[in-house]
Amino acid sequence: MTRRSSEVATSRAPRERMTIEERREQLLRVGRGLFLERPYDQVSMDDVAQRAGVSKALIFHYFTTKRDLYLELVRRAAKELVEATFVGEDRPPLERLTTGLERYLDFVEQNERAYVALLTSGVGADPEVLGVVESVRKTFADRILASIPPSETSHADIAVRGYVGFVEHASIAWAQNKKMPKAELIELSIKALIAVLGLQLPGR
Amino acid sequence: MTRRSSEVATSRAPRERMTIEERREQLLRVGRGLFLERPYDQVSMDDVAQRAGVSKALIFHYFTTKRDLYLELVRRAAKELVEATFVGEDRPPLERLTTGLERYLDFVEQNERAYVALLTSGVGADPEVLGVVESVRKTFADRILASIPPSETSHADIAVRGYVGFVEHASIAWAQNKKMPKAELIELSIKALIAVLGLQLPGR
Repeated sequence: MTRRSSEVATSRAPRERMTIEERREQLLRVGRGLFLERPYDQVSMDDVAQRAGVSKALIFHYFTTKRDLYLELVRRAAKELVEATFVGEDRPPLERLTTGLERYLDFVEQNERAYVALLTSGVGADPEVLGVVESVRKTFADRILASIPPSETSHADIAVRGYVGFVEHASIAWAQNKKMPKAELIELSIKALIAVLGLQLPGR
Repeated sequence: MTRRSSEVATSRAPRERMTIEERREQLLRVGRGLFLERPYDQVSMDDVAQRAGVSKALIFHYFTTKRDLYLELVRRAAKELVEATFVGEDRPPLERLTTGLERYLDFVEQNERAYVALLTSGVGADPEVLGVVESVRKTFADRILASIPPSETSHADIAVRGYVGFVEHASIAWAQNKKMPKAELIELSIKALIAVLGLQLPGR
């Protein structure tokens, strides 16, 4: 386990007076860095304390358990993803879809290791973590369902849930071996949705 | 927690002499029943011992931990699913796909609670369990890739991984609220695959 010099420097910086909010953010930042470096099981609250340059007692003032800290990181990432992929409801359906997918894949690119680890390696997998992931999937499905005419297709909910699964699994494969251009993956995803909904989207 | 009378009868039956193989099968059967009745965390090896009418010491002779027993059940279910969905390679691609999907959804129907719990509730989620699930997904993707001409489409692997995610997520939604006829879900899945591969499959 080698640490980059900038991180060593940070951890050895003289202890600063931080507000409660700043300290909380610092601990989350340090925790995120550690969870990205090594498997969940190999990160301890001692590691977090050491790298943040604070006592273990102080950490437990902010996060009761390691899982607590991890869950907060997952919740934040989920919130960030949901916000980053929101496209105004005034835009036509096809543009909303395409722009949403573009932003989704941008997020996947920027958070590649965390994204793949969360969905494939069981890092910290527990009902609450999965609950957060599931609520993101549901948000995406609801957004799409809200943008298609209800009479247009039967059982659209099942088709759209499948489509969300398509994007998730295809984007994992894409992140692991990025030989397909992003635009092509977006095109594929749109084709899949149009096919399963039997739709002619405006603008197509 | 009420138990059905047949199960009470089983657990109270006089202890029989079983071969090692028979005993192992009995314990797996009892464990499966318990994991289907209540959340993973609420099943103990004591419960398994009690219902099987054996000592806890005997159980540990067969399975070192509860996770060990659970993992064996997941491995068996995975093997069963992979075998049940195999269709002879002599059949035309579209027929293989359709028959494979039919058998997949039959399996989902027959194992509904276990299927949904495994994939959505984090029951016993750990790297090894997820590894088994991931190897099933890979088997499905490989079967499909083997049945399409390699020159026919670029980056088919990413499209096919997405398609496997489509079927998984759509079938969870379908199992949870089975208002869509099975034939329609099969049709949807085939449409999704054809669209993302840009294929004209023989027989279509």
